[in-house]
Amino acid sequence: MVQATDLPRNEAGIATALGVLKQQFGERFQTGDAIREQHGHTTTWIKNQIPDAVVFAQSAQEVSEIVKTCAAHKVPIIAFGTGTSLEGQINAPAGGISVDLSQMDKVLAVNAGDLDCRVQPGVTREALNTHLRDQGLFFPIDPGANASLGGMTATRASGTNAVRYGTMKDNVLSVEAVMADGSIIRTASRARKSSAGYDLTRLMVGSEGTLGLITEITLRLQGIPEAISAASCSFPSVDAACQTVMSVIQYGLPVARIELLDALVVKAVNGYSKLTLPETPLLLLEFHGSEASVAEQAETFGMLAEEYGGTGYAATSTTEERNKLWQARHDAYWAMLALRPGCKAVATDVCVPISKLAEAVNAAEAKATELGLVAPVVGHAGDGNFHASVLIDMDKPDEVSRAESFVSWLNDMAISMDGTCTGEHGIGQGKRPYLVKELGDAVPVMGAIKRALDPDNIMNPGKILPS
Amino acid sequence: MVQATDLPRNEAGIATALGVLKQQFGERFQTGDAIREQHGHTTTWIKNQIPDAVVFAQSAQEVSEIVKTCAAHKVPIIAFGTGTSLEGQINAPAGGISVDLSQMDKVLAVNAGDLDCRVQPGVTREALNTHLRDQGLFFPIDPGANASLGGMTATRASGTNAVRYGTMKDNVLSVEAVMADGSIIRTASRARKSSAGYDLTRLMVGSEGTLGLITEITLRLQGIPEAISAASCSFPSVDAACQTVMSVIQYGLPVARIELLDALVVKAVNGYSKLTLPETPLLLLEFHGSEASVAEQAETFGMLAEEYGGTGYAATSTTEERNKLWQARHDAYWAMLALRPGCKAVATDVCVPISKLAEAVNAAEAKATELGLVAPVVGHAGDGNFHASVLIDMDKPDEVSRAESFVSWLNDMAISMDGTCTGEHGIGQGKRPYLVKELGDAVPVMGAIKRALDPDNIMNPGKILPS
Repeated sequence: MVQATDLPRNEAGIATALGVLKQQFGERFQTGDAIREQHGHTTTWIKNQIPDAVVFAQSAQEVSEIVKTCAAHKVPIIAFGTGTSLEGQINAPAGGISVDLSQMDKVLAVNAGDLDCRVQPGVTREALNTHLRDQGLFFPIDPGANASLGGMTATRASGTNAVRYGTMKDNVLSVEAVMADGSIIRTASRARKSSAGYDLTRLMVGSEGTLGLITEITLRLQGIPEAISAASCSFPSVDAACQTVMSVIQYGLPVARIELLDALVVKAVNGYSKLTLPETPLLLLEFHGSEASVAEQAETFGMLAEEYGGTGYAATSTTEERNKLWQARHDAYWAMLALRPGCKAVATDVCVPISKLAEAVNAAEAKATELGLVAPVVGHAGDGNFHASVLIDMDKPDEVSRAESFVSWLNDMAISMDGTCTGEHGIGQGKRPYLVKELGDAVPVMGAIKRALDPDNIMNPGKILPS
Repeated sequence: MVQATDLPRNEAGIATALGVLKQQFGERFQTGDAIREQHGHTTTWIKNQIPDAVVFAQSAQEVSEIVKTCAAHKVPIIAFGTGTSLEGQINAPAGGISVDLSQMDKVLAVNAGDLDCRVQPGVTREALNTHLRDQGLFFPIDPGANASLGGMTATRASGTNAVRYGTMKDNVLSVEAVMADGSIIRTASRARKSSAGYDLTRLMVGSEGTLGLITEITLRLQGIPEAISAASCSFPSVDAACQTVMSVIQYGLPVARIELLDALVVKAVNGYSKLTLPETPLLLLEFHGSEASVAEQAETFGMLAEEYGGTGYAATSTTEERNKLWQARHDAYWAMLALRPGCKAVATDVCVPISKLAEAVNAAEAKATELGLVAPVVGHAGDGNFHASVLIDMDKPDEVSRAESFVSWLNDMAISMDGTCTGEHGIGQGKRPYLVKELGDAVPVMGAIKRALDPDNIMNPGKILPS
């Protein structure tokens, strides 16, 4: 596919670097086919481009040494966490070294008094939350997959809780990173806010490994709320559901989660998770706070939803029922796949101003129908972010081609609404043409920064910026 | 003073650029002494360095033309909003052109459904809030001064509300900026979140005019809360007050403001604002939310404060009493000046992890006493951010020198606590040596970005980065 063009390889440099790294890392240097394929895999339709070797690093110092070796021989370096990125971020279009950071999996410090912690990049979000639970703390960002915190930082991940707790942009206080010359920098102090110079933290968050490798992250934490309740509410139309979401946001109701499932997803979820929800657009909610505040939020939501014809609304604070609802949401991906067994889901991700959400979702459903595609929609509605997952048979070129048309059309529509071609998956390889459409003259500014910090283009080449 | 060294001037280039701009801007091109002094003034002790001319721009296109003229002749450009920055950000150490943006003062759009708005950089925060009031919306960032939103963006300002609503970093969705080559870029869409490429928005926020001139800002807004209440609570010690703040943050109580005044400030405020507060450390609070939530927050705070010996606590929701309390807080600067008539206040600004706040404030008070200085402390305690304002007689070199020692010591202490030398005032000229102490090898990365985007160093030279 066009999104995964191979780039010229520096064969001589790669051969030399492989020799040096093999010598240095022994068993932690791997070139077997299976492991290389796993490290160049994509969870989506973008074709695999495998690296020449995988090195398992155990410290920032080691990462620095790898980078210095690669820099000396102008060899590409691709950071690898858990491999759950969705836009080809870990592909190796020019070959090179995949630096696997999964063994850097220590929680280095938890400062309960300051609600922050310092972790290595290979710690997954679930591992961190398990580590924190005894202290009454949690890390709120939940992109669905049990991604590594390094990867989540690098792609500026978010997910269901972002409407209340923000994205990785808002929850990373500081990173330690190895830059393209092998230098190790720390972007900020542990203070909750700072005006000290350029915001290198935010520059690294979302840079997808193209500026440096993240070797440590200082994260903001939250206290586990005294009370949590969940709810679902059915609506006669996508418009009605989205109008309700807009009311909620304008009202300032601090919902922790407000997810939109279109009728097709509800149908899929009913089948997969043995639920009996009405097969119309649905909002799934979660409220966090004190007992009284959660009860008040739930009541206020009910009032707002009623205005737009919301039905079947009931809040529950039993852990079991709550988990059942959210498990169904998390299983939506598998449930959707079950709608067309044997198919792949093309993950799309756009984000529009919430006043445009209903229009965008309706248009996406109509366009899918027009193109003869099955494309159920789930959305982090409170942020205007949604995914239309096109279910396609990868063996049918015509279907793949129609799906490509759909994704292209969807990105263009989001951009035309003053939205973005990616709310949370990142640009990677797949969204590069749309980045230019979206931000125009700002893209050369990104290019200038990239060239200044990585003049030989060894850090994850072929990602984010147009070739 | 060392912080305001003059830089070499490009006399020939300046003369040529002045000729071109005079021709082009007529009455909006000014070279009178008074206006140049006003545009190179500093509100603090850093000496004035006046620009060669002031140009009043009225559009991004005009700013672009000014920048192109200055770029052609390698002449410095300094953006000017309201002139309330505190670290010499608007000084002209190498001369050049002050671009006054105060005439770009239009609110261009308010999208109530999306809780955002688009403004020109010369709109002040008070003007914006006046504009928004009828729609039930407000912009929460309040640095005290009625600063321009362009200036607040450029210095990554925050203030009393940041504990709940974040800083400019969190509330700017996108900027339009004129870069050093005169190109006009827009850094992001209007989507509430995005993973589209490098976060140029956050790079421009806090760049203090050294990377480009901000000509438009898209801001997040908030609904005016249904209920607001304010309170004050006295404490036996700074430790007790800070312990309470830490409890509040750990508890997850969503206070909108939690300000610390040390005993000296309370004394000053009593005198200036005719209050009768006990002259011990004080917390000033504000709660936002529904009626029920505000009442619950106030009650919970009372419970937490009691544990640490808080006294005289009473929440009030009458607008009059609330305004009286907060007016006293906002007048604290003038109240402190009245402690030593004829003196100047040296504005300092550091931010530490909140677990270190009590230790830092106690140490600052002790150090001031040791140096024979009067340095009352006010703090945005929920963020660990505080100001020790040294009151000095600028005609006494020995006093000035002791104040310099104090500020230097304070910055070093904050950095040693894994805090920052500036939580909200920025680096400007004054904090440049501390930026290097704080972030070490990250500073050359900032330098590389600066050189890539402004190779001739015409954008606000002599600021942020070490010479």
